[in-house]
Amino acid sequence: MSGIAEVARLAGVSKSTASRALTGGGYVSDGTRQRVADAAASLGYVPSTSAVSLATGRTRTIALIVPKVNRWYFGAIVEGVERTLIPLGYDVTLYVAEPGSRDRESLYSTYLARKRFDGIIAVALEPDDADLERLANIGKPVVSIGNALSGVPTLGLDNISITRIITQHLIALGHTDIAFVGSTPPTDAPAKDVDERSIGYRNAMNDNGLAVRIRNVPSTLTITDAYAAAASFLADAASRPTGVVAACDEVAIGVIIAARRMGISVPTELSVVGIDGHDYAEMFSLTTVEQFPLAQGIAATRILVSMIEGTGEAPRRTEAETRLVVRASTAPPRSA
Amino acid sequence: MSGIAEVARLAGVSKSTASRALTGGGYVSDGTRQRVADAAASLGYVPSTSAVSLATGRTRTIALIVPKVNRWYFGAIVEGVERTLIPLGYDVTLYVAEPGSRDRESLYSTYLARKRFDGIIAVALEPDDADLERLANIGKPVVSIGNALSGVPTLGLDNISITRIITQHLIALGHTDIAFVGSTPPTDAPAKDVDERSIGYRNAMNDNGLAVRIRNVPSTLTITDAYAAAASFLADAASRPTGVVAACDEVAIGVIIAARRMGISVPTELSVVGIDGHDYAEMFSLTTVEQFPLAQGIAATRILVSMIEGTGEAPRRTEAETRLVVRASTAPPRSA
Repeated sequence: MSGIAEVARLAGVSKSTASRALTGGGYVSDGTRQRVADAAASLGYVPSTSAVSLATGRTRTIALIVPKVNRWYFGAIVEGVERTLIPLGYDVTLYVAEPGSRDRESLYSTYLARKRFDGIIAVALEPDDADLERLANIGKPVVSIGNALSGVPTLGLDNISITRIITQHLIALGHTDIAFVGSTPPTDAPAKDVDERSIGYRNAMNDNGLAVRIRNVPSTLTITDAYAAAASFLADAASRPTGVVAACDEVAIGVIIAARRMGISVPTELSVVGIDGHDYAEMFSLTTVEQFPLAQGIAATRILVSMIEGTGEAPRRTEAETRLVVRASTAPPRSA
Repeated sequence: MSGIAEVARLAGVSKSTASRALTGGGYVSDGTRQRVADAAASLGYVPSTSAVSLATGRTRTIALIVPKVNRWYFGAIVEGVERTLIPLGYDVTLYVAEPGSRDRESLYSTYLARKRFDGIIAVALEPDDADLERLANIGKPVVSIGNALSGVPTLGLDNISITRIITQHLIALGHTDIAFVGSTPPTDAPAKDVDERSIGYRNAMNDNGLAVRIRNVPSTLTITDAYAAAASFLADAASRPTGVVAACDEVAIGVIIAARRMGISVPTELSVVGIDGHDYAEMFSLTTVEQFPLAQGIAATRILVSMIEGTGEAPRRTEAETRLVVRASTAPPRSA
């Protein structure tokens, strides 16, 4: 098998440059990195990564922590991270565990404690104070997507503003009886990221003097659970709202599917808005605020890599891009 | 920081047993492994895995290759693999790349060539002969989910039989004009796994003398693309089939959503069947053949771990469990 010396000779660079290019252990221009990679590929040379790791202290691996993969938002983030790291030659170790699960307990004590990575991308992580201290003690760069973590660069949405905008869209059309379907913020604890959407709805209603019409319909944030919730709260025509602000597009889609099955016309009898820009939004003609989790995965990964490679200053907080898209799921209420 | 000696003393075992328990380098009973893990956790001891890897030749990492994560089937498999490996203390490196993509090219030349894993789980991988040879040359255990790979233990479905069963269900209800929506098998190449479903439909139609009514409607296997295909092939009432065999539940759901929007009653005017047991199947009252990708991820992982740890003989091919579930998306055709 060929060695690093042959690779360096073929690429026309020094052995140390070839080594840096292949292991990521220092600055090499993109052109040189490509030339060395091509030389290595043509010679079938691959560095022993255990030895590289002991020599450089670098694993060329990123830890990616998500609560689920089997949901549009999380799946898209994972694909964004993959798409960014594969061409850079990083491995991605994936840790999937929901808050409160047994596996979540071993996240800090085992997976993170082993430190088999150069940095961490944490998606919708909700560490308590002890967890945050453990995260800091690991001594590796961390980027958060979703929830803001103390001392960690975070890529997230301004959920309160977004939900205010989408609620305001219904109010401007003439709706006054608008339900919010999704989580309700706890009264005895700080609001988490997703709870902020309920707050944004509440603020918009209050601003318009519609406080008396505020109603929260609890639902987990899946199409199927929202479908079940809607089958119940839409059943009585007399008490039915004319507008629904859904905590996310999956909830909005569950409500629309339920409404159609019950013979309730969207938007003539019921206007529905979501937040996400889900793959299915267009199919359901859903008015929504689009966010772009694939792009968020790419952006967070670039921030993390620049922290690892020492080539950039990480911003404290980055506001992810969003865009209001008005489709046919919203119209003035019939009585207006 | 505590060392392995303290961990061994606290757990009441020898240093070499403690080392085996923590590194996976040999047989240790579950009880002992747990005692050592508890002792290590209480002392905050985590072995240096680069050193462990050089010492044992084991990485305690599994390579997981999938074409996508952001689809129900692949997402569920990934979660099944994670759920199995996290309690065993394995890391999972995830490689996401669709066939034909740029990243797919570096799968063999970079990701797999680095051999930073003890074994490989390949989902829906379609290697050509050269790829298969490279896979074999890596010299690590491989388990395939979906497509059968030469010389590799495979967990899969009998797609031809399953599609025959679900087509037969429509024929038994009295349908004769049944369309298959999904991929069509190539005429110039061996059928891939998913193409087998089209063959199963064709066989069932032929068996019942309905050959003249065979019609394939091409669609990729997503809800949105099937929705678009259905909006077209359902438009003309005169040429509309009375039954649809969908290549998977996502296709079936896209057809149902389109039918409802077009005012075509399911099942009165159109019966629809799928294959999968998707999370949304019940919400759409979909008659389907359920498979269980989460369980497939768990089963494949167990086979791979037993190969790595030398504790079991891997079966050549394992038939994944399936189950016909009849719901309200199917009924006799109106004319019957």
